[in-house]
Amino acid sequence: MAQVAVCGPAECGPEETDAARTVGRLLAERGAVVLCGGYGGVMAAAAEGARRAGGVVVGVLSGRDRAGASPDLTVALPTGLGEARNALIVRAADAVIVIGGSWGTLSELALAQRGGTPVITLGGWRVIDADGRPVRGPIAVADPAAAVRLALG
Amino acid sequence: MAQVAVCGPAECGPEETDAARTVGRLLAERGAVVLCGGYGGVMAAAAEGARRAGGVVVGVLSGRDRAGASPDLTVALPTGLGEARNALIVRAADAVIVIGGSWGTLSELALAQRGGTPVITLGGWRVIDADGRPVRGPIAVADPAAAVRLALG
Amino acid sequence: MAQVAVCGPAECGPEETDAARTVGRLLAERGAVVLCGGYGGVMAAAAEGARRAGGVVVGVLSGRDRAGASPDLTVALPTGLGEARNALIVRAADAVIVIGGSWGTLSELALAQRGGTPVITLGGWRVIDADGRPVRGPIAVADPAAAVRLALG
Amino acid sequence: MAQVAVCGPAECGPEETDAARTVGRLLAERGAVVLCGGYGGVMAAAAEGARRAGGVVVGVLSGRDRAGASPDLTVALPTGLGEARNALIVRAADAVIVIGGSWGTLSELALAQRGGTPVITLGGWRVIDADGRPVRGPIAVADPAAAVRLALG
Repeated sequence: MAQVAVCGPAECGPEETDAARTVGRLLAERGAVVLCGGYGGVMAAAAEGARRAGGVVVGVLSGRDRAGASPDLTVALPTGLGEARNALIVRAADAVIVIGGSWGTLSELALAQRGGTPVITLGGWRVIDADGRPVRGPIAVADPAAAVRLALG
Repeated sequence: MAQVAVCGPAECGPEETDAARTVGRLLAERGAVVLCGGYGGVMAAAAEGARRAGGVVVGVLSGRDRAGASPDLTVALPTGLGEARNALIVRAADAVIVIGGSWGTLSELALAQRGGTPVITLGGWRVIDADGRPVRGPIAVADPAAAVRLALG
Repeated sequence: MAQVAVCGPAECGPEETDAARTVGRLLAERGAVVLCGGYGGVMAAAAEGARRAGGVVVGVLSGRDRAGASPDLTVALPTGLGEARNALIVRAADAVIVIGGSWGTLSELALAQRGGTPVITLGGWRVIDADGRPVRGPIAVADPAAAVRLALG
Repeated sequence: MAQVAVCGPAECGPEETDAARTVGRLLAERGAVVLCGGYGGVMAAAAEGARRAGGVVVGVLSGRDRAGASPDLTVALPTGLGEARNALIVRAADAVIVIGGSWGTLSELALAQRGGTPVITLGGWRVIDADGRPVRGPIAVADPAAAVRLALG
């Protein structure tokens, strides 16, 4: 069964919330397990979308307990690893969908690229090299349906 | 929802297999999520028991991918952390049920005790102090039903 | 005593090698401990520079053993954590000097920013937001001396 | 260069303090790097012994910063990993010397055995199987000199 991580900031605007909720729903409808960081913002919206569609959502938490975890998680995994848990979320995923930008989110994008996991982005931050050219790797798409289609191959 | 880890060796005899399968089934029947190391032996038997009873089973794998993972996992999480993943299994659990003995299993028992997670043992290794007295902490029980009852408080 | 991480790609050109070697030397001359990923390229050059100047260099390796570690490390710490070790390098540092660009390097930059550790960059990749504006955080400098001066405050 | 971990409880009696200090000193005199958990008790005594003898001591801390770290560490590495850092200490060591007993200490002993790193014990807890027989693996010695001799093979 496919496992797809949805990564994005804990604080986000209504557009990102909508996109994350839709991505979560579409992944669940396709039978994929949704992995996320388990807290608010994009993470919570993706969890909500997946849960409402009857999907399985795993929140890989940075904290030592479930404090602050989204109520829509099927399983909340407090790792106690702090930011190192970002490496776990993307390691366990077949593909990573990034929605919006933050330093934590960027670390997940970079760790996924480093480890060879495909990354699909919906908006958010971009990376350019010293000459100002976009660094190849993440695939930018325009809407949730395209993101999910690419993620599930 | 309760999350209970079932820990034990990757190679075990029929008695431990039976006990693990029953523990997995009883946990699932009570609605608890089963966490385990995700590979063979006690881990696979607990996963099988829980899955057959319609439960959710998360395998927190030490490897970088799903190679060798039990087919009965709802979610397989390759952490790429090696033995450090043992700390995660017990950190994410409300209680730990230990079935049988091995060094990896003992590390989980010890990490759970260190972190304040209750440990219930079904057979397996025991720990004695320098004077030969049992070290307090883990609660030994005689059968799977007692283990699950204690774990779910 | 200050601890400064030097992060950069395992494969790099002569300019980055020179910069890393100089940064390592200057840090050691100022009495700072140098932390790095412990392998080749920028990591090895920083280690070499620091070691020649009599400094202490710790290589936090992703692998399970010391295979491939730079010979200039005072201490080689195989973590067996894979890419998750990137979080450790920056967590243990008072400041992070980034030389050059790669996905692994970017993950260290992002994890440092996420965790509140100051980041100083010498060339390398840059991050822009959805509107093409540079994301604030990392401080770009022109040469190794400026990087070390800023890192040691 | 050899790297030897010294593991033991954060709170210990004078006998264990003396043993740990001597072990630290002997390791440093033989040129070995001392790894430890970086806090009080056995860890601090080992660090003190090694530092006084001019050795290099690395404290692999469970916390996110250097709070509570022994003043005798050459390098303090806050990992932010909580108890999972126990796996790192033993993974990075060529041999592990255990002095005294606690659940955290036992987890290090068990993780070392699991990972194939030799373990030498000076007092402390012991492990017996279901039939009450000692589980093979750790080598018990009578004094610090024997522990260091074995650890450095």
